[in-house]
Order: sequence, then C-alpha cells, then structure tokens
Amino acid sequence: MDRYDAGAMTTPLVPPQSDRVLMGPGPSNPYPEVVAALGRPMLGHLDPDFLALLDETNDRLRAVFSTANPLTFPVSGTGSAGMEAAFVNVVAPGSTVVVGVNGVFGERMCDVAARCGADVARVEAPWGSPLDPQALLDAHPSPDVIALVHAETSTGVRNDVAEVGAALQATDGPLLLVDCVTSLGGIPVEVDGWGADLVYSGTQKCLGVPPGLAPLTVSARAQGRLLERPQSWYLDLNMIARYVGGDGGRAYHHTAPISMVYALHAGLGVVLAEGLDAAHERHQACGDALQGGLEDLGLELFAEKGHRLPQLTSVWIPTDRLPAGMDDAGARRALLDRYGIEIGGGIGAFAGRVWRIGCMGHTARPRNVLLVLAALEELLSS
Amino acid sequence: MDRYDAGAMTTPLVPPQSDRVLMGPGPSNPYPEVVAALGRPMLGHLDPDFLALLDETNDRLRAVFSTANPLTFPVSGTGSAGMEAAFVNVVAPGSTVVVGVNGVFGERMCDVAARCGADVARVEAPWGSPLDPQALLDAHPSPDVIALVHAETSTGVRNDVAEVGAALQATDGPLLLVDCVTSLGGIPVEVDGWGADLVYSGTQKCLGVPPGLAPLTVSARAQGRLLERPQSWYLDLNMIARYVGGDGGRAYHHTAPISMVYALHAGLGVVLAEGLDAAHERHQACGDALQGGLEDLGLELFAEKGHRLPQLTSVWIPTDRLPAGMDDAGARRALLDRYGIEIGGGIGAFAGRVWRIGCMGHTARPRNVLLVLAALEELLSS
Repeated sequence: MDRYDAGAMTTPLVPPQSDRVLMGPGPSNPYPEVVAALGRPMLGHLDPDFLALLDETNDRLRAVFSTANPLTFPVSGTGSAGMEAAFVNVVAPGSTVVVGVNGVFGERMCDVAARCGADVARVEAPWGSPLDPQALLDAHPSPDVIALVHAETSTGVRNDVAEVGAALQATDGPLLLVDCVTSLGGIPVEVDGWGADLVYSGTQKCLGVPPGLAPLTVSARAQGRLLERPQSWYLDLNMIARYVGGDGGRAYHHTAPISMVYALHAGLGVVLAEGLDAAHERHQACGDALQGGLEDLGLELFAEKGHRLPQLTSVWIPTDRLPAGMDDAGARRALLDRYGIEIGGGIGAFAGRVWRIGCMGHTARPRNVLLVLAALEELLSS
Repeated sequence: MDRYDAGAMTTPLVPPQSDRVLMGPGPSNPYPEVVAALGRPMLGHLDPDFLALLDETNDRLRAVFSTANPLTFPVSGTGSAGMEAAFVNVVAPGSTVVVGVNGVFGERMCDVAARCGADVARVEAPWGSPLDPQALLDAHPSPDVIALVHAETSTGVRNDVAEVGAALQATDGPLLLVDCVTSLGGIPVEVDGWGADLVYSGTQKCLGVPPGLAPLTVSARAQGRLLERPQSWYLDLNMIARYVGGDGGRAYHHTAPISMVYALHAGLGVVLAEGLDAAHERHQACGDALQGGLEDLGLELFAEKGHRLPQLTSVWIPTDRLPAGMDDAGARRALLDRYGIEIGGGIGAFAGRVWRIGCMGHTARPRNVLLVLAALEELLSS
C-alpha cells in the first residue's frame, strides 16, 4: 500500500486551462515562441549545447541591458532573488546604503539591505511621485551603495536613474544599484550609459517570459568590490561567475533551471528581433492609449503626470461608480470571471484604493488595451 | 537605431534540439506530462485557479514526503536554494550545527551553516561510505540542529536517516534537517516517520521535472523555532507561509514561478498515479540492473555495498580500458556525441576517477539501462 492520501488521486492530472489576458503587475502573457521553448528537450547543465545556449542568452541580456558587463546572467530565482543577489554580494555589516523609497519595492530594498547588516539611509518621496535624484546624492557623505527602483511596480512611477548615475560617474564613490524588474524591455534601460553597477530584472514583465529568473548584470567596478564570502551561498556571485562563464570557467555551482533559461533565451530573441526601440515604442503606445482611455472614462490616474510608466498604469478606483454592493476585490473578480482579464489591486497603503493595470511583453498589444477599456466601461455601467 | 549587438540577431531563435538520454546526476528526462504542463496558459500568482493548483501541488508534496506538515511547498529556486532556506531560517550566529559529511553536499551544508554564523561540528565518513548515525548523535551534547544528506549525489551513497531520527524523537532536542534532493521519489522518504524537521528536495531528479524548484517541508516543531527575521528576505519562511497558505493567508511575497509549479504539479501527479511504492520499485529494479550490468562488464562500483543508491550509481572509471588517447572527459563526450547519452563525472577528490550514472524519474526505464550498458560495452571495446 502506498502512503499518500487517496484524495490526491481523485483530482485530474491536468486541471482546467484558464486562458487569461494578464493585465496585472505581472506576470504578463508570455510570447508564443517562449511557450514553445519551455517544452524543448531537456539538457544537462554542463552539456555543451546548453552552455552555448546560456552564453547566447547572456549575450542577449547584455544587448537588452545595454551593457558590455562580462558578468551578466539570469539568477536562478524570481526578481526578488535578483534584488537579494545584488545587495548581499556588496553589503556587509556596517556598510552604508542609501535607498530611495517611494513604493513597496524601495521598502523591500531597505529590508534586504538591513538584513545584510547595513546602516540604511532612507530617502523618501510620496507614493505616486518620483524620487528626487539630488536628495539621493545628498543623503550621506560617503555611502557604499545608492539604490533605487527604476520602475516602481507598486505605483506606476518612473524614477530618474540617469541623473543619479551622471553625478556619480566622475567619482569612484558609491556603487549604483538599480531595480529594473518592471522596466527592462518596456522602457529604455541604459546600464552602461547610466554608469550603474548592479542592475537586476525579472522575466515576467516586459520580457514576456514566465516568472522564475532574475536577469542580473554587474559592472567591473562592482565585481572588484564583491564580498569574498557573502552570507548567501546560493547567490554567491564569485562562485556563480565560475559557472556562468564571466571568467571563462564552467565550475558546477548549482543546477541551472534549464527550461526557464530556454524560455528566457526565446523571449529575448523575440524582443531583439522586434528591435529594442520598437518594443519600447509599442509599450509606450499601449500605455498612452490606456491612460488616455481611462481618463476618457472619467477615471483619475494615480501616478504624477510626467513620471508615469507606460507599461504599468495606476488608477484610483472609481468606488462610487462600481455596481451596487461591489468592492475592489469584487470588481477585479468580475473582470476575471466575465472577461478573463486580470488587473492588479493596490498594495501597501493603497490596497483597495488603486488598481494597477499592466500592459507588458506579449500583452502589450492595442487590442488588449481596447479590450480592458471596453470591459471596464461595461462593468462601470452595469 | 537599436543599441544591441547585431551579432545577437544572426543566430536562430530556436537552436538545434538535442535529444538526450539524461543519465547524469540530474537533471533527468522529464515525464511527457510534465513537458505538456510547462506550456499551459499563464496565470497570475494570485489568480484563484493558480492558488487552487498550488494548494493541490502542496498536497501532492505532502503525499510524496509522507508528511502532514502544513508548511510544505516548493521554494522558488533550485535544490541548493532549498538547502539555504532550511538552514537560514533556524540557524543564527552562535547556533551549533552538527553536519554529516561524506560528500560534496554535506560539505555544502557546512558552508551554508557557517555563513549563517553557526558553530559547525563536522562528522565525517570516507566518500563512498555511509555516515555513522551514532557519531552524529554523539558529536555535541546539545546541538541546535543535526543535518545530513539522505542520498549523497556526489558518491551514490545512502545515509541512514531513520536511526538518527528515532534517537531524537524522545527528546525535545535538536532539529533534524535532511537533504532529500536525490532521494525524493526514488527511495522511501518518511518525513513524519523519521521525525525530521526540515526536509528539502529538488525537482530534477526522481520527480522527473525540470530543475528550478526545491520542495520543502517544515515540521510544526521547526515552525515554532523559525527565526523572526532570517538574514535572507527571499527565503524568509514566515513571510512565505503567509502566501503559500501554511497559515491560511495569501499575502504577496514574491511572484511564484508559475510554469515551474505547473510542471511540478504534473510530475507529482505522474508519480502518485504510478504509486509511490511502484515508483520506488522501478528505481530499485533499474539500479539493480545497472549495477549488476556494470559489474558484468568488469567495472568496479565505488559506493560501499549495502549502502548504494539505486537511482545514482558511482563506478570507478576503467581508465586502462578506454580507447587509446581517450580520457574521462573524452569518454563522456563520446557517449554524448555517439549515442546522445549523458553520464556524470566525479566531483571533488574523485573528479576524473569516478563516473556517476543516474537512472531517475522518467529516465528510470529498463530500456535506458540496456542502452547505457550496451553503449559502454561498445565504447570500451572500440
């Protein structure tokens, strides 16, 4: 007799296939080429064919990040693992880290840095407004790291990385650490142009790939300052570099997530075949149409004008126009059940008050903008 | 003009599809049902349909782990992330951790524990031999954690967990932490029967799923001892429990790797539909046939008799019988190029001296045993 619960056997092996239009803060719908790549025959993590594919994936990442950094690869975890990898390898007890905080992900950076033992200097801006670059530069006379989020997924605000980077480039001062989880592939990310040192992203936003990997790139300057023995073994960049080939080696560290690397390779291929500029323009056009359409419906956008992300739009929930008895969660559930459309709720202090509507990766198509606007119009008049 | 390197565009989006029989130490070949599941339509990580699938995945994990632990879920990283999650949540600076070391993964445990600030008490056995359970119990008068690897992937040796667990069960003493990366689904794993407290695995071995997730289960006793603020944010079990539902909540922590959870759900479904006992018997039969066949070829097994894993066989490389001019790497490359068969090399002190031949998950079929034996025979007589 087997020991498992018989209940586990009465459910189908393949559950109903829900077909969603994913317009939340991520995941977005993956590109068809990505879905096909997920199912490619499995290879070992030391197979020469896999290593060639990994190398090419890293080349494509360098292209999308606009960097020549040799140490550029996908961390084997989600975007938050990318954040932890970026901090844990350069922040030791007593390090000073300046963090820009105008949303959940800036807050998360403070938490991650503090767990590395850092003295954290917070530079705040109201949620919905951008950070002040000069305030980041002035926050501490000699920080080890200045960290900020390029595209705040919790508010839909774009922070100005270029100005911070430009001011730092003349110095051999702090490392510039940037979260590009929601920006990469959707708006221009210029790692070398900014002079950024540690930049990470996620796969499930504007790259049109399932969640599970965190693209990361590390400047030569940051590579020279990596801790010899960070508190995380799994995210130890010196060890991982000996496998991913940043220094030419192929030493086993952990087993790479093969199928997800296939998917990322394919997603980057789609983005580069379209052209980075064209992909950015597509995201911009969809965001403009969505934001204009929401205002045409009489809704009020949350993020400050002039600092809005095209790929993630935050909007005040029109509570008084929802059908009688329907709240935030009910409205989002109705969109899901009636139209198969997912949009995101607010988080933190804006839970229940704001919706977040993403238009990223393969989802960033005019027809999806039309659809979500039509569905919202129907919902609000029902 | 786009900014990417034009070279990235000249390569095909979908590279040649290599079709391997994966008989290394993992990944194994995934089950066909798993490959199909990878491509299922994407869902958001808070979609009710995804949460139902995640719950069912965790039920299936409890069945395969033979546990009733509420906190049982896949960590969003590979098996090594599971190891780090297990240590980092219960080991603080000054904790005493006893670690059994008879291979690479016991060594890795020492490294991970030390990075948490632990005083590590090593209990060694020669590579190829099992640990002495009594030595683990006697190593320290009052350790906080006793840790060992159930199935040492570097040597093919099975360590006796049950005896350690039985001796501890009368006490409210140390937590028992067990690495089941290569054992789960291949040989009996009895988390509750052992009285083990933190047990993790990987997906890419005997579960027949691609690498990328680390199934983890945590006893109520261990849950009561979780650090309030572990050094890792990404692997913070108290936070993750509020999402995976161990305490009934659904608070966002990080975006779950959706497609990989589909794959794990399907792989566990295949294993449970076959029956756990039947799956273990299949692995045992393949291992017996492989080990007998290697001895019939005149090769000498590396791991001590009576403690050999069926799913991972280590064998001394018959250097003097290899074709003239062919070394370890050349022989493995010949198996790959001529027959599409991957086997693993030795690691650590046994690199170049030992091969590791896996027969795990969907790969654990008699025909693959026949194939690798025939290919080796042909290679050694060529």
